[in-house]
Amino acid sequence: MKISARNVFDGTVGAVKLGAVNSEVDIALPGGQKIVATVTNDSVAELGLAAGKAVKAIVKASSVLVLADGADVKLSARNRLEGTVSAIVEGPVSSSVTIALPSGDSVFATITHEGSIALGLKVGLPAAAIFKAPSVIVGVSA
Amino acid sequence: MKISARNVFDGTVGAVKLGAVNSEVDIALPGGQKIVATVTNDSVAELGLAAGKAVKAIVKASSVLVLADGADVKLSARNRLEGTVSAIVEGPVSSSVTIALPSGDSVFATITHEGSIALGLKVGLPAAAIFKAPSVIVGVSA
Amino acid sequence: MKISARNVFDGTVGAVKLGAVNSEVDIALPGGQKIVATVTNDSVAELGLAAGKAVKAIVKASSVLVLADGADVKLSARNRLEGTVSAIVEGPVSSSVTIALPSGDSVFATITHEGSIALGLKVGLPAAAIFKAPSVIVGVSA
Repeated sequence: MKISARNVFDGTVGAVKLGAVNSEVDIALPGGQKIVATVTNDSVAELGLAAGKAVKAIVKASSVLVLADGADVKLSARNRLEGTVSAIVEGPVSSSVTIALPSGDSVFATITHEGSIALGLKVGLPAAAIFKAPSVIVGVSA
Repeated sequence: MKISARNVFDGTVGAVKLGAVNSEVDIALPGGQKIVATVTNDSVAELGLAAGKAVKAIVKASSVLVLADGADVKLSARNRLEGTVSAIVEGPVSSSVTIALPSGDSVFATITHEGSIALGLKVGLPAAAIFKAPSVIVGVSA
Repeated sequence: MKISARNVFDGTVGAVKLGAVNSEVDIALPGGQKIVATVTNDSVAELGLAAGKAVKAIVKASSVLVLADGADVKLSARNRLEGTVSAIVEGPVSSSVTIALPSGDSVFATITHEGSIALGLKVGLPAAAIFKAPSVIVGVSA
């Protein structure tokens, strides 16, 4: 698989919660963190998603928000990976932010240049990568 | 809270419609406009979302579309904030568009440079910011 | 309608699968391909979505992933349009990729510059445009 998404995490399905149209899929990462994905029930069936299945959790960088100081807020977004800013690339409109996780993995976020400036992001500062469950694509080996 | 999302609206929960896996949350803004968010039922429970609760509606600029002339179309996207283009920043690939709302708030959209050119956007022209309910993150004070 | 989204496909509703809060809408394109959209039940009612209805499927370029070699993977994303890379514009942070479909339509994706480099994208190579059902906005004539 060669896919444009910068975030591809190997994990294992922990649980699948079926709804009427959509399902919620919990994916455990080796580092102990969890990713929650919302996919259609059709996808659950076609991909054979069930507890124990090895999967990839795929997230576009543009779906990821950066939270620099979140002690005072609780967010509805199901996914929050805490780490340290390890790289920032500024463009005229967009900025690319890399957050290194304790597990050794990295998360990539594309945010607005203005957002980057407003946050005062600097390499070495703590930050969290935030993304919603519907932003996660689940992949399995064909 | 310091978050990269350019759009953070203070509002009050109007209603919560529970589904099997996801819920629809109506958020009333002080200016009389409404934002609809789709979040998981787990988030509704953890954040204590119920009518009257003060919340923040958070939307990434990249989740926002700009509609320049929408008299002839109805869209499935639940969120449509009408205003006036107040700023445009063009990059080689992306453009940042700011839409000033009658309430005094602004909405920020990151769109493609080609989209911006095709729309003929200019400061002072009317435009609507369009975003889907699953693009909205709900935040509450911790 | 003048909308910033680069991807606007004319199609016909094939089926609507109602859930508790959200519905899945299948849209048939003239070229024989299918697009799946997840919208709220309120939208289904307001837009009068039912089999046979002429609609537009609208997808922001930033919601589209590019898959360059997908023989070994199955993805939960419901939408996969196969074609050939016809244009690439590189920016410092983002890249714009155009994929020409056999039907004559094109799909536009905004991906990270790093993603573009990692994929080794070149004009003329086969590629698929991937996007999730919740990324699709459905439009009808007012």
